[in-house]
Amino acid sequence: MEIPTKRTLLLFSGRSNPELAQDLAAHLKQPLGHVALSTFANGELYCRFEESVRGADVFVVQTHSDPVNEMIMEQLLMIDALKRASAKRITAVIPYYGYSRQDRKAISREPIAARMMADMLSAAGVDRVMSVDLHTGQIQGFFDMPFDHLTALPLLAEWVRREIVGDVVIVSPDAGRVKVTEKFASMLQSDVAILYKRRSAEAHNVSETLAVVGDVAGRRTVLVDDMIDTAGTICGGIDLLKAQGATEVYVLATHGLFSGPAIDRLKNAPIEQVVVTNTVPVPESKRFDKLTILSVAPVIAAAIRAVFEDTSVSEIFGGQNQL
Amino acid sequence: MEIPTKRTLLLFSGRSNPELAQDLAAHLKQPLGHVALSTFANGELYCRFEESVRGADVFVVQTHSDPVNEMIMEQLLMIDALKRASAKRITAVIPYYGYSRQDRKAISREPIAARMMADMLSAAGVDRVMSVDLHTGQIQGFFDMPFDHLTALPLLAEWVRREIVGDVVIVSPDAGRVKVTEKFASMLQSDVAILYKRRSAEAHNVSETLAVVGDVAGRRTVLVDDMIDTAGTICGGIDLLKAQGATEVYVLATHGLFSGPAIDRLKNAPIEQVVVTNTVPVPESKRFDKLTILSVAPVIAAAIRAVFEDTSVSEIFGGQNQL
Amino acid sequence: MEIPTKRTLLLFSGRSNPELAQDLAAHLKQPLGHVALSTFANGELYCRFEESVRGADVFVVQTHSDPVNEMIMEQLLMIDALKRASAKRITAVIPYYGYSRQDRKAISREPIAARMMADMLSAAGVDRVMSVDLHTGQIQGFFDMPFDHLTALPLLAEWVRREIVGDVVIVSPDAGRVKVTEKFASMLQSDVAILYKRRSAEAHNVSETLAVVGDVAGRRTVLVDDMIDTAGTICGGIDLLKAQGATEVYVLATHGLFSGPAIDRLKNAPIEQVVVTNTVPVPESKRFDKLTILSVAPVIAAAIRAVFEDTSVSEIFGGQNQL
Amino acid sequence: MEIPTKRTLLLFSGRSNPELAQDLAAHLKQPLGHVALSTFANGELYCRFEESVRGADVFVVQTHSDPVNEMIMEQLLMIDALKRASAKRITAVIPYYGYSRQDRKAISREPIAARMMADMLSAAGVDRVMSVDLHTGQIQGFFDMPFDHLTALPLLAEWVRREIVGDVVIVSPDAGRVKVTEKFASMLQSDVAILYKRRSAEAHNVSETLAVVGDVAGRRTVLVDDMIDTAGTICGGIDLLKAQGATEVYVLATHGLFSGPAIDRLKNAPIEQVVVTNTVPVPESKRFDKLTILSVAPVIAAAIRAVFEDTSVSEIFGGQNQL
Amino acid sequence: MEIPTKRTLLLFSGRSNPELAQDLAAHLKQPLGHVALSTFANGELYCRFEESVRGADVFVVQTHSDPVNEMIMEQLLMIDALKRASAKRITAVIPYYGYSRQDRKAISREPIAARMMADMLSAAGVDRVMSVDLHTGQIQGFFDMPFDHLTALPLLAEWVRREIVGDVVIVSPDAGRVKVTEKFASMLQSDVAILYKRRSAEAHNVSETLAVVGDVAGRRTVLVDDMIDTAGTICGGIDLLKAQGATEVYVLATHGLFSGPAIDRLKNAPIEQVVVTNTVPVPESKRFDKLTILSVAPVIAAAIRAVFEDTSVSEIFGGQNQL
Amino acid sequence: MEIPTKRTLLLFSGRSNPELAQDLAAHLKQPLGHVALSTFANGELYCRFEESVRGADVFVVQTHSDPVNEMIMEQLLMIDALKRASAKRITAVIPYYGYSRQDRKAISREPIAARMMADMLSAAGVDRVMSVDLHTGQIQGFFDMPFDHLTALPLLAEWVRREIVGDVVIVSPDAGRVKVTEKFASMLQSDVAILYKRRSAEAHNVSETLAVVGDVAGRRTVLVDDMIDTAGTICGGIDLLKAQGATEVYVLATHGLFSGPAIDRLKNAPIEQVVVTNTVPVPESKRFDKLTILSVAPVIAAAIRAVFEDTSVSEIFGGQNQL
Repeated sequence: MEIPTKRTLLLFSGRSNPELAQDLAAHLKQPLGHVALSTFANGELYCRFEESVRGADVFVVQTHSDPVNEMIMEQLLMIDALKRASAKRITAVIPYYGYSRQDRKAISREPIAARMMADMLSAAGVDRVMSVDLHTGQIQGFFDMPFDHLTALPLLAEWVRREIVGDVVIVSPDAGRVKVTEKFASMLQSDVAILYKRRSAEAHNVSETLAVVGDVAGRRTVLVDDMIDTAGTICGGIDLLKAQGATEVYVLATHGLFSGPAIDRLKNAPIEQVVVTNTVPVPESKRFDKLTILSVAPVIAAAIRAVFEDTSVSEIFGGQNQL
Repeated sequence: MEIPTKRTLLLFSGRSNPELAQDLAAHLKQPLGHVALSTFANGELYCRFEESVRGADVFVVQTHSDPVNEMIMEQLLMIDALKRASAKRITAVIPYYGYSRQDRKAISREPIAARMMADMLSAAGVDRVMSVDLHTGQIQGFFDMPFDHLTALPLLAEWVRREIVGDVVIVSPDAGRVKVTEKFASMLQSDVAILYKRRSAEAHNVSETLAVVGDVAGRRTVLVDDMIDTAGTICGGIDLLKAQGATEVYVLATHGLFSGPAIDRLKNAPIEQVVVTNTVPVPESKRFDKLTILSVAPVIAAAIRAVFEDTSVSEIFGGQNQL
Repeated sequence: MEIPTKRTLLLFSGRSNPELAQDLAAHLKQPLGHVALSTFANGELYCRFEESVRGADVFVVQTHSDPVNEMIMEQLLMIDALKRASAKRITAVIPYYGYSRQDRKAISREPIAARMMADMLSAAGVDRVMSVDLHTGQIQGFFDMPFDHLTALPLLAEWVRREIVGDVVIVSPDAGRVKVTEKFASMLQSDVAILYKRRSAEAHNVSETLAVVGDVAGRRTVLVDDMIDTAGTICGGIDLLKAQGATEVYVLATHGLFSGPAIDRLKNAPIEQVVVTNTVPVPESKRFDKLTILSVAPVIAAAIRAVFEDTSVSEIFGGQNQL
Repeated sequence: MEIPTKRTLLLFSGRSNPELAQDLAAHLKQPLGHVALSTFANGELYCRFEESVRGADVFVVQTHSDPVNEMIMEQLLMIDALKRASAKRITAVIPYYGYSRQDRKAISREPIAARMMADMLSAAGVDRVMSVDLHTGQIQGFFDMPFDHLTALPLLAEWVRREIVGDVVIVSPDAGRVKVTEKFASMLQSDVAILYKRRSAEAHNVSETLAVVGDVAGRRTVLVDDMIDTAGTICGGIDLLKAQGATEVYVLATHGLFSGPAIDRLKNAPIEQVVVTNTVPVPESKRFDKLTILSVAPVIAAAIRAVFEDTSVSEIFGGQNQL
Repeated sequence: MEIPTKRTLLLFSGRSNPELAQDLAAHLKQPLGHVALSTFANGELYCRFEESVRGADVFVVQTHSDPVNEMIMEQLLMIDALKRASAKRITAVIPYYGYSRQDRKAISREPIAARMMADMLSAAGVDRVMSVDLHTGQIQGFFDMPFDHLTALPLLAEWVRREIVGDVVIVSPDAGRVKVTEKFASMLQSDVAILYKRRSAEAHNVSETLAVVGDVAGRRTVLVDDMIDTAGTICGGIDLLKAQGATEVYVLATHGLFSGPAIDRLKNAPIEQVVVTNTVPVPESKRFDKLTILSVAPVIAAAIRAVFEDTSVSEIFGGQNQL
Repeated sequence: MEIPTKRTLLLFSGRSNPELAQDLAAHLKQPLGHVALSTFANGELYCRFEESVRGADVFVVQTHSDPVNEMIMEQLLMIDALKRASAKRITAVIPYYGYSRQDRKAISREPIAARMMADMLSAAGVDRVMSVDLHTGQIQGFFDMPFDHLTALPLLAEWVRREIVGDVVIVSPDAGRVKVTEKFASMLQSDVAILYKRRSAEAHNVSETLAVVGDVAGRRTVLVDDMIDTAGTICGGIDLLKAQGATEVYVLATHGLFSGPAIDRLKNAPIEQVVVTNTVPVPESKRFDKLTILSVAPVIAAAIRAVFEDTSVSEIFGGQNQL
């Protein structure tokens, strides 16, 4: 018996970011698949796929937003169910990859949580992973499978080009992120400035103060980071930039986690705009006037389509999607 | 260079059940090891062992109580950190094993979550597992490593012997648990009764009613189950036993999850006592007069000591610790 | 170079159940593939595929009937040969899954043989498994791959509907199988009765007697189990049902192992009919008048076709194929 | 808590070769451990260890003699049970390694059964393997774990030295075994002769005749092979040696499988003696006057002791135990 | 979304044998894919694929010629890159398989390097392997994946048929290679002679001298081996054949490594021709008049096409491609 | 049988850095074990352990210096041989970890070579790894096993304290290494300066120039990096520091690879001293007046002893050994 083979795309979403999932579905012109997701009284999660996934090329979208452990576990359970239900290929689409900052041992006897997440996904049965603007590029090396790394930098760059008139300086929030900052600056053909912690040691008295390298006085400045979590460091940077004479400060990041005091801090900061993408959902209660949320859905949808159709993902980004 | 080898026991606890952990430490005369555990603002967990674990025989106690996904993830992260910090052997001590009721596909396209938990523990780097009164014995088969199965039944049986005077009937809450009930009854040399859902089909009209098999009228009855979750089924059984003339109803279980409406239901039920162990922590707010909590620490401590000293675990239970 | 891909189905059979294999081939309109199977003088098995299997979607049918270890080993060797010969996907079709009753440790220091069989199949290189009416649903969780669980219950139910006139009571042979019995009864909209071992403890003298719950007096009764092995327990049940006034007793099971004294016992039992399927071959010498053997081939053939064509397997059973 | 560690040796045997096991126990001054082994009516095997194996260094002796598949499966089940019962280290002692002649694909679409056996042992949970005179040395490379290869050649050489007076010629039964033959000859400082199949092609008519290389006329000859299976090839060699004027022919082999017509053939052959070891049990019914069976127990016992005590195994054989 | 699937062949080559790769490309009518390969100043290798490999059926050609460790590492790095770049299937095409002679432990405490190479390839992510005339057939068993074994013997036999007029004797260079020699002889319907090391033991003085079995006097002889490395043994054989009266000596081998003194030795040997294939590149500086190099490209290209198109590989060789 | 267990340390070295190995042996008061290492004429490597390693705690020292692929392969082969020879635990001691700069995909379709090396070591059978000053800390996460990370920074700091009188400024060679530089500076309580590539964009003309942040004029400067490879970037930094008025420039690094033009460049650079450790061997021909080589042996020896004796490794470094 012989039949021609075909490939069928199915798109499912966990409960972490339903808006982004709908947005993706719209861009892909592919309705979200039906899956029942619930939480038992004792906190255990449950999932059941309500349509056949047999032989399908399945994409499971789940961002690792708060409550992050539940969101991760829900995605793992979905993957286990898909594997057992004979999905042909399972791609975990993780707009924001949880535990990404625990990517090495900073001191002894810590876990390397970002690696462990890779092991969990692999043990559950995922075949490939897709994520946006990882904290460090080495996380790809934690996986022993294909990993499609996407970036929202072109999206943010386009916003700068469209919304800020005239010359800007792109500012790296710390010395460790200079390379990414330069990549962003090159998209805009702009200058770069760097914030860094200046250590000075006088009379055996070591002190650290934030300092800026590069000309910011009298110029519009754009702070770019991969994520805004509690916004503590970022707000320190904003203050310094203003103190150094920056006329305007914009804060851009791919992932808007806005944990704890983040929103209060940013609302009160002397900034023009905070711009993030929707990789992490921002509830109504956290939104404020100066906050702009760009949809990353076109980027992810294009990548899903490329993976499904076996066309190049890096071409979508002109080869600029690695860190 | 040549040295004699020794084995060092270290005991660490996650944050799920600190009282039980302290209790275990006391029984083992082995202070709890120092480990820093915390939660970041965005919900990610963090752990760091504050003493050397190199070459040690480490037991990591964590019960999978609500919030169950966080408790599981915390244990996994602890295991990953221990593995990387050169612990010689890592035993996950899981008084209550989470997701144990999702041990098979009841309908298509579900996960088998209890198996997936085994895979997660294994991927994190655990060498062996210890747990108490699993929901089904097959869960041991989900692991490809040694699994010490402990039981609190002797503890509960002892309570019955001590607290209830005279003849009792042991009642199985449903047909599927008859075997465990009989094992419990044999410890007490008591009769068994069984609750079951009676299906009757008249004129193509199927109805289900709870029924009891065995003599309960005028007798003291003891309902035994592995866990009390929302207590819905159990309270139905209590009502039936009373309706059938039981003079007293006691409810015993190893794991007191007491989720959702459980406490309200039990407080209002016509029962003498609810007896559980402390495998799952019961917060003060949930405790009530008729609730007795037995400590399972002596049982677990004895098993840990046997594992550490390479003596028989099954002997602790007279060979009656399997399901 | 670019070519369209196609999928080719190949069906091979071991030597355990050639009739069923032929039956499957007929239903699939797909002739059995050529494979040479033999046994050396010292008992070692040998297999060689006599046609190319490169790139094919191969189904290897072997039931685990007596001599069970040889039948299992033959299937494993066939899988190893297929893997090395570049079969694209290998599905082990196991009508009766061997060692399925050794699915947990009933006492200490036993193997969990049903899990070990899963590990053997996986190590040999199988990609997926298909089986009929497993002893317990948890066995699916012993696998880390897709498992298509089929059921012959609808086939047996159809036989009841066709052959037994009037009202019947479906009887569970012990308390542990009530759920499956209820599923079967609901297909027939019938009542359920339960056989169970009644323990009674008088003056510290514990005795066990088989008892029945539910009305059977004056009614036609249908005992349903997953398998008939030595038929000891079943014959005890038959006697009790007759003693309780059942007018007729039918015995139905998916797997007719008929080991040791089974046939003698059943021939002499006061029953109307024994009905099994052909998942296990019944040699001529074991057949008797009251034995009916239904072919499970249509069910398995439909599932193989669904797997091959990526259509839903659970739909074949109206979603009722899980335990 | 800290304790010194110790190592405990336990020795268990399957049912394939109880005499050899007893012999081993005697040489090790270590009684055989208690394990219950049985076969169910349907052919499934069962095992249960009747003493604690926790933390022990366990050796499981099982030769792969007929019925070979059952013997292999029994050993696998024992290993699974030991792993789950917390044995510290499990060594499979396999005096005769089954399926060793299926060590490569001689034609397409065959299994490589000797490799698959390695995978089965590994999947069951064995930590190391010990065997005697493998068919080819490459089989060690099928394992990803330590493999202690023992040889009975010194034992056989000693027999020759003791029992045959004067000059002997060692004969290789076919060209492929010349290397092993030479190793054996060098132990005895003897000449070597080789049997080989002479192909001659005349007028496009190819014929094969057995031929001998080396001087055998008027001399005592010793045919040495790793195993005697059906004895067909060997008896052809005996006839040729006699025809070429050999005064005496001795046949030596490590493994006496004696399958099918072997005993009849050898009884009627013009030989002085057949000498084998007891790696494979020879039932009374197969023994005959000219058959000598040497016990390999001292060799295996010495190796077990060395493994247990971490002393060199190769030293037992003066470094001559590899193929 | 649903699309028909197609399969795309891509062919890449490492830097070990560019001529063979070009030859393969020509035979396949498939241009070599673009990949940048370079060596850093400190000796580390680097590779980057310059075209999309997503979803492709990729063949990576690399022979393990000197510098063998670099060539192996380059192939492993290419495989890792392909895996991460989402190639659908990766086949390592290894015309000459490195470390193939280290296929077993000849003495204790050696590696089994040929197995380790298999583990390296597997760990890097290869899906299947293709190689030509392995040193021993058991090496296939070192892999747990499909392995296409090709042979250049028909190519060499064809050369003999075409270039040598009249009757020839095929000579095995040592006793261990008799089987392959016979296979080759049967292709030509020729006689076989065997070179072997004759051990003789006189007065406890053991000496080894090379001897020949079979008629070579006055005949054309063809020595056939799998490889020519330093040519020491082969040249010893040539001398003996001439001394025994062979009129002509031809030396044929699949792999012409020509290490160290090989070329000097062969140039000075009394031979007619040395014939090898281009599985290993022979630099201009090593070529000499009597050296003929046949291209193995048609054979490998046919096999690649068969693998790509799912047709039988063994059929290309009339089923004679196994050892 | 029961014996107390002991642990035996064995130390072996590959051929990459014999001096360091001797130095280690001296510090450990443990002679190097005997292992035969050689290279065949065709470039294949060979190793054989000439003493029993059974049950031993073995440390295999090999730095990944040029020829890096051979050195890596030699270590892998040694590990394979040790595994098969029953070493109890195998630790790969890798003073300089090869391919460490290929730790992420900088552009698409590259390998992640540093991860692949981890996979190779793991596949060969290593149990744990020890290395010094990794290029990035994330490399530890590429392993699924314990990894002891050592640092030579205290050694370098001590040199500065001892050899340079008065105030110094520690200089980071690029923005990405600021964190390590600060760690080093804090050991010396010194100031930090940073070199970075300044991008400026004028009239759409982007130019990059090296710039320095921090006060260096009139001060002694110490450039610190993890390795000196071709010394191109470093020499650019030296020139700039001098141009900015630094009175003295010292260059310190853990790993002195000195590839290609490195030595020439440094000899001609306006520096006081180059200080490296002996993690990588520096041949006599590359040594020059201003080059100081510190021995890292005391650090590695202390770590090996701690691993062997189960004491804390991080304590050796006051907990400062992570990146």
